[in-house]
Amino acid sequence: MTDEATAKRDFMRNLLEARVLLSTGVRGVYGRGSAFVDVIARVQALIDAISSRHGAERVSFPPVVPRALLQRTGYMESFPQLCGSVHAFTSGERRHPALLERVNAAGDWTEFLTQTEVVLAPAACYPLYPTLRGTLPERGALFDLCQFCFRHEPSDDPARMQSFQIRENVRAGTPDDVRSWRAAWMEEGRTLLESLGLRLVLASASDPFFGRAGQLMKANQQAQELKFELLVPVWSDAEPTAVASFNYHQEHFAHLFDIHTANGEHAHTACIGFGLERIAVALFKHHGLDTGRWPEPVRQRLWP
Amino acid sequence: MTDEATAKRDFMRNLLEARVLLSTGVRGVYGRGSAFVDVIARVQALIDAISSRHGAERVSFPPVVPRALLQRTGYMESFPQLCGSVHAFTSGERRHPALLERVNAAGDWTEFLTQTEVVLAPAACYPLYPTLRGTLPERGALFDLCQFCFRHEPSDDPARMQSFQIRENVRAGTPDDVRSWRAAWMEEGRTLLESLGLRLVLASASDPFFGRAGQLMKANQQAQELKFELLVPVWSDAEPTAVASFNYHQEHFAHLFDIHTANGEHAHTACIGFGLERIAVALFKHHGLDTGRWPEPVRQRLWP
Repeated sequence: MTDEATAKRDFMRNLLEARVLLSTGVRGVYGRGSAFVDVIARVQALIDAISSRHGAERVSFPPVVPRALLQRTGYMESFPQLCGSVHAFTSGERRHPALLERVNAAGDWTEFLTQTEVVLAPAACYPLYPTLRGTLPERGALFDLCQFCFRHEPSDDPARMQSFQIRENVRAGTPDDVRSWRAAWMEEGRTLLESLGLRLVLASASDPFFGRAGQLMKANQQAQELKFELLVPVWSDAEPTAVASFNYHQEHFAHLFDIHTANGEHAHTACIGFGLERIAVALFKHHGLDTGRWPEPVRQRLWP
Repeated sequence: MTDEATAKRDFMRNLLEARVLLSTGVRGVYGRGSAFVDVIARVQALIDAISSRHGAERVSFPPVVPRALLQRTGYMESFPQLCGSVHAFTSGERRHPALLERVNAAGDWTEFLTQTEVVLAPAACYPLYPTLRGTLPERGALFDLCQFCFRHEPSDDPARMQSFQIRENVRAGTPDDVRSWRAAWMEEGRTLLESLGLRLVLASASDPFFGRAGQLMKANQQAQELKFELLVPVWSDAEPTAVASFNYHQEHFAHLFDIHTANGEHAHTACIGFGLERIAVALFKHHGLDTGRWPEPVRQRLWP
């Protein structure tokens, strides 16, 4: 086991012993104890202030999204390994005993189920774009949303959960509006997280595109500076952990969902997202398990 | 179409036109517009006040729970038709093209997926019980949690979503403590919802147990008064809609998960839950689509 893997495993044990996180028995799926819930609520309040100042409209989507949406956006081409598809028992009473026998044998129930119309949301902003079809107001549009997202990557890393919350803001408008909005958030996000005592690096980044074909997508994304991340050295300086991302989609979603600016062009869109559990884990790792003993400036900022 | 079905369909159209709810194209899966998000946040704040006064500890679980938990609690015996099971693509690049072909044909992907260790949470409190294993403090335990739950029952009824939030409180302790706590919440919950201008009925109720064997379970639950519901006549007086439930589990969960009181007996547990979307839909139905024109006493209560 590498030093880093040991560090992750040991810190996870500490988080569980202190009931900061609660074990469910599944890797990457944890309950949140009261301290963890409180820290996330306070970080959210700090993000609230920035989102409100920008004038973002609060909307919300459930943690499942239409399966047809993933097809439309090409998600299964780029990230098939991360998707959680939802299946249900739609047979009648006649097949129920056989299903139960399989359930009680702790076997695989797949053959008794059919695929539903929904999958787990992989990001907060996907279901928003289809609702923007048409022509945007003169100044474009700006939304604030938060959602439990799912990515199937079981791991012992406390900062890589399978089910986690992303607080996102989404901007749609002209290329200039969208780019300057993203640039402002990169600064404001950095300032916010630095005020919590985290040491940060801003870096150009890419998404975990699947397979060999994905390598080209990654290179392209990096070359065009479409994605930036704020990273914190939670486990090591060599492999810091991304806690926020700033993503410019150009006309991608506007083409897919027919979204136009007031001047008739395809809109550009961007989203910024904070990984709330990753930020909380970074804070507990850096400042300790007892929030009562966190540095006074950090406490002042979170609990003013 | 019955009058009631027409009323539901027409009101759903009104909610979508006013962007109180946002269509995703899947029945029972909706985005929440800013007014709906705000109403739910304000109702939550009113529940916060009662939970805090009781001294409940805030915890949180993600919208997926271990599949083994449903097996352990017998969920698939009682409610197999409601469960959402999560499946993922775990094959390598070789099977990816065939998966994509199926995805793009809008076919069923099941044969390319394997069942994961998680299912969608059917209620907020299930994952809490295993974390209580052992001996409770002298006064028992009390928790406050909120979660997106999933029940596979596609419907055009705005008050019957597939993915919806339940705000729950859970009490574990002696039979007396648990019963008197549930009785207090029945009164407080009723007072809270009446102060929002809703007309309520409190009634003994049962869960939607599956199949013919389920009829006996329902009768037993009713005879022992294990479940009460607060109901609002959203669509009709004849079939009012449950917006809150008050459930006494006796020793059921304590037996399953070895939870004991300080005096060594198996603990009793109860949970109370508010259906947040149902409360919001009832408010929009009763007071109108524009919250700015809701009755002044209701506005004062929600936005003091």
